[in-house]
Amino acid sequence: MSSIVAVGSLAFDSIETPFGKVGKILGGSANHFSLSASYFTPVKCISVVGEDYPKDHLEELKSRRIDLTGVKVSPGKTFHWSGKYGYDLHEATTLETHLNVFEHFSPEVPASYRDSSFLFLGNIFPALQKQVLGHLPQARFVALDTMNFWIESQREGLIDVLGKVNCLIINEAELRQLTKTHNVVKAAAQVQSWGPSLVVVKRGEYGALLFNGQEAFSLPGLPLSEVKDPTGAGDSFAGGFLGYLAAQGNPQPDRVSLRQAVVYGSVMASFIVEDFGCHQLLKISKDKISERFQKFRDLTHFQ
Amino acid sequence: MSSIVAVGSLAFDSIETPFGKVGKILGGSANHFSLSASYFTPVKCISVVGEDYPKDHLEELKSRRIDLTGVKVSPGKTFHWSGKYGYDLHEATTLETHLNVFEHFSPEVPASYRDSSFLFLGNIFPALQKQVLGHLPQARFVALDTMNFWIESQREGLIDVLGKVNCLIINEAELRQLTKTHNVVKAAAQVQSWGPSLVVVKRGEYGALLFNGQEAFSLPGLPLSEVKDPTGAGDSFAGGFLGYLAAQGNPQPDRVSLRQAVVYGSVMASFIVEDFGCHQLLKISKDKISERFQKFRDLTHFQ
Repeated sequence: MSSIVAVGSLAFDSIETPFGKVGKILGGSANHFSLSASYFTPVKCISVVGEDYPKDHLEELKSRRIDLTGVKVSPGKTFHWSGKYGYDLHEATTLETHLNVFEHFSPEVPASYRDSSFLFLGNIFPALQKQVLGHLPQARFVALDTMNFWIESQREGLIDVLGKVNCLIINEAELRQLTKTHNVVKAAAQVQSWGPSLVVVKRGEYGALLFNGQEAFSLPGLPLSEVKDPTGAGDSFAGGFLGYLAAQGNPQPDRVSLRQAVVYGSVMASFIVEDFGCHQLLKISKDKISERFQKFRDLTHFQ
Repeated sequence: MSSIVAVGSLAFDSIETPFGKVGKILGGSANHFSLSASYFTPVKCISVVGEDYPKDHLEELKSRRIDLTGVKVSPGKTFHWSGKYGYDLHEATTLETHLNVFEHFSPEVPASYRDSSFLFLGNIFPALQKQVLGHLPQARFVALDTMNFWIESQREGLIDVLGKVNCLIINEAELRQLTKTHNVVKAAAQVQSWGPSLVVVKRGEYGALLFNGQEAFSLPGLPLSEVKDPTGAGDSFAGGFLGYLAAQGNPQPDRVSLRQAVVYGSVMASFIVEDFGCHQLLKISKDKISERFQKFRDLTHFQ
């Protein structure tokens, strides 16, 4: 079993969907990723919070084998994002972004993190992703997430750091935007030509698609009768995906492990969308994860 | 092995997509359905064409064990539809509809068709679907397709005929429209409450979702690097789906047969979208169908 180093945001989210509205709940990519991955393996987190960030949540994270040595508490306020979704829940409209302490975030990698072979570069400024990567020379399985904001403003920097990672995890619309290509098969091949042999395409309720070299694996989403808020689904997916692989311990995972990692990612995402915020991720169990893994098998196998 | 009775249109299509433009090619639900299903089992077709419909295509259909006893040649012109698609290819914008001989179509069921136990009610006026059904008292597996036009103008009539069929095959957006429900799980349950225990939701490039009583089966679409025109994909799907079931001969198919039928439907749909018109359906082979069935297995299984 290997641990995972994860860099990303710890934040407050204010969210409105057709199914409800919440203010200043706990969010951020590092939060959702770490909670999700911690069901599989220990996580070493790199992030920054302000003085207003709840101490009890930091304690909660620590109690779940999430190492916070790399989380800095800075003077000022925590990053706060406000967004809104329509019925289709595929894309958020950002209402407000207060970067606060995140504005001057310069991730530092504690010495105790440096022997990690699994690394998750959450959705932050590509140059900072590159900086973290540079401090972890032993990282052998590196996955990167990004979003439309960086694709628009930092496309060259993003393509540069992609040359150094094994796996890109990205929304379908953002894959099209990044590659300027509509067809997903061609778009994934374009990304592979920049470096990563693995491209995981997140398709919301339609599931996820993995391109592994020349071969593809596609997993539909679990049909759910309650979906309230998709915020954090992508990071929960990444947590399950990398968490499972790191728990297996092999930074050169085989074909079947990668497929099963996509299923575990989808399992974790399926929990978080059922309600607002991250508390779904606080109350599940390994049994529930196994049960839902089996549900995906029942949903998809035909022979 | 049972044959299938299919009612629907034989038409000319003029189509524009971002990948090309074609005028007056052979289309219509009965054409695509029959060609697709005929790879699995004999089809008995009910439709109408005008005097301008090419005789050699009628001969082509006949040569493929498609019985045209129920196809009337009426004075006047054949139904002609013109439509346009954008990049996402999920929904056509109708540019022109010339019903022509289809305007006064009153389907007649030849005596030689009346012992069929499989029936496909293609996308036509719901009252005509009901009329055909009334003439086939021995039909024990009845599937119905429909579209937004009928949902808007004939919702009550459609719900009425749904009470008499086993299976609804419908696009996802149209399922939402029909049930006035966004959530697909709830929408399918609503349809089941009206009659059909089977609901097949077509999701374009995202595949298909089968609700069979309480259980669900989901098959993603095959990632294709060339998709030119989705016209006829739904009817080709229905042809593979019903064709496979009728070839098995059991009008009360078991769970696994229904799942495999969804795969065969998706196989047939995956061929037709690769080019304009129906000629993809004229040149495939049973071997290519088996090969693509296997591709779906390779794409989806993880254990």
